[in-house]
Amino acid sequence: MKPRNRVCRLFGIDYPIIQGGMVWCSGWRLASAVSNAGGLGLLGAGSMHPETLLEHIRKCKAATEKPFGVNVPLMYPELDKIMDIIISEGVKIVFTSAGSPAKWTETLHSEGIKVAHVVSSTRFAGKCEEAGVDAIVAEGFEAGGHNGREETTTFCLIPAVKKICTVPLIAAGGIVSGEGILAAQALGAEGVQMGTRFALTRESSAHFSFKDRCLRLDEGDTVLTLKQLSPTRLIKNDFYKQIEEAESRGASADEMRELLGKGRAKKGIFEGDIFDGEMEIGQAASMLRELQTVDEVMKELVADYREAAAHMQPLF
Amino acid sequence: MKPRNRVCRLFGIDYPIIQGGMVWCSGWRLASAVSNAGGLGLLGAGSMHPETLLEHIRKCKAATEKPFGVNVPLMYPELDKIMDIIISEGVKIVFTSAGSPAKWTETLHSEGIKVAHVVSSTRFAGKCEEAGVDAIVAEGFEAGGHNGREETTTFCLIPAVKKICTVPLIAAGGIVSGEGILAAQALGAEGVQMGTRFALTRESSAHFSFKDRCLRLDEGDTVLTLKQLSPTRLIKNDFYKQIEEAESRGASADEMRELLGKGRAKKGIFEGDIFDGEMEIGQAASMLRELQTVDEVMKELVADYREAAAHMQPLF
Repeated sequence: MKPRNRVCRLFGIDYPIIQGGMVWCSGWRLASAVSNAGGLGLLGAGSMHPETLLEHIRKCKAATEKPFGVNVPLMYPELDKIMDIIISEGVKIVFTSAGSPAKWTETLHSEGIKVAHVVSSTRFAGKCEEAGVDAIVAEGFEAGGHNGREETTTFCLIPAVKKICTVPLIAAGGIVSGEGILAAQALGAEGVQMGTRFALTRESSAHFSFKDRCLRLDEGDTVLTLKQLSPTRLIKNDFYKQIEEAESRGASADEMRELLGKGRAKKGIFEGDIFDGEMEIGQAASMLRELQTVDEVMKELVADYREAAAHMQPLF
Repeated sequence: MKPRNRVCRLFGIDYPIIQGGMVWCSGWRLASAVSNAGGLGLLGAGSMHPETLLEHIRKCKAATEKPFGVNVPLMYPELDKIMDIIISEGVKIVFTSAGSPAKWTETLHSEGIKVAHVVSSTRFAGKCEEAGVDAIVAEGFEAGGHNGREETTTFCLIPAVKKICTVPLIAAGGIVSGEGILAAQALGAEGVQMGTRFALTRESSAHFSFKDRCLRLDEGDTVLTLKQLSPTRLIKNDFYKQIEEAESRGASADEMRELLGKGRAKKGIFEGDIFDGEMEIGQAASMLRELQTVDEVMKELVADYREAAAHMQPLF
């Protein structure tokens, strides 16, 4: 074991590998398994009622003595309740996203909580620095679920954010392997956040049919769509065909909202309706074929990273 | 100087850095400068009449004793004439794109010409292997100009192609720095092809106004559009606003073709009409601010790659 880097020291973890706090995937089973394996597990508050989050935090504490955190999308309707629970339960790490990092960082800091904020542009990374966050997650176009309007890829985003970033930079989007971790590091990241790879483990709370479909994807089977509402990467299934048809005839944002309806992501990810559900997953899912446990994934990532690093011969 | 790798040996070059053969940018001045600096310069036949290509090949031969090549888009209308010129002039390296690699590889091989083919998907990389090409260029979504329908990013595409690829793999799309070269290598590439970085050098034949505009771009200022015709990455200028407006009202492919008209890329890149022209450039242009010479670029890439490689400390 080498000396731990800034990301490891910040969160008190062995490997700077963070499991993305995803809707409908990231319950206490997934988060505690990742933390127990030496990474950082995150509960995904975005798809939990406050009382559900409370239950998951308590179960996560019972399942691991290692640090874990909660991902909180800042457009969450019952945000105050969620934050109260996080603070009163003594959670020490919060990842915020989808909103201004200036809003909650100070409050969380005053409770001794470390704050990382997720961005998809250098401009928002700058706002993170101003807000005094402890780490920045920069997420590229290839990531699953909600994404930025600029469509900046991981390859272009990480070096650009690195240039203006003093706090530890965590790369996300398209990273599913040890080689990917090494490449993210070459671009300037000190850690990685992986959603897709962990969404498709046995411990993920996603429906088996969702995982099964995701593990059979070909290249080009996901797409960033719903750009009039909030750009989202999902699988091109029957539901997507309706989106595409509506867009090709120039449907309005209101029509798109009506088509989307409520609970589409739950339907796809949690209930496993692979045809009519919103199947949010990253582009790199097409490289995954096997349903593994978190422990297998973590061991493979560490071994593959080390092998890839050992094989790097100077090009010139 | 370390022992040269497969890409260097294949083309007889010092650095596995290839200058993309772009329309309206890649004449003899650019190609010979890159070859003289130890990389591989490519003439871009896509925007040249056969007699223009002949002239550029002859001037390139006069300007460098190093190997150089020609990029040939296989949908070129006078393809036979172009290939005749390449063969009779004794050019020894051809990069083909936008078509089937099976079509010309055998003919070119029988003339002692090395063939690389550009793809944007693993499926087409497989066709390249079957066709017996000497190298594969895999180009991600972030690249400028014409691009694949799958929208697979460099970060996702390179490891996927690497898995099925026995010939040397050259990464393209989003690579503008030494750190980028190192990251591409981590993902499995043995060389890189860079378009955007070389399009914006003094030796590029693009109009000054085009270069000047490209060197002031912010993140999110380019977009992959014209998806009904042939997906193309370009700057969001006035011309793009017309495309966007037409698409939002559900315009047909024929309407889009009419809007595009003829000579739009020439207008933007070669004639410098930054408002009404088609301004094809990669996403990573937003990281570039300075109009440099090819020699400066090559020296910077080599130095920055070495520095980035030296700074890689094991994460675990």
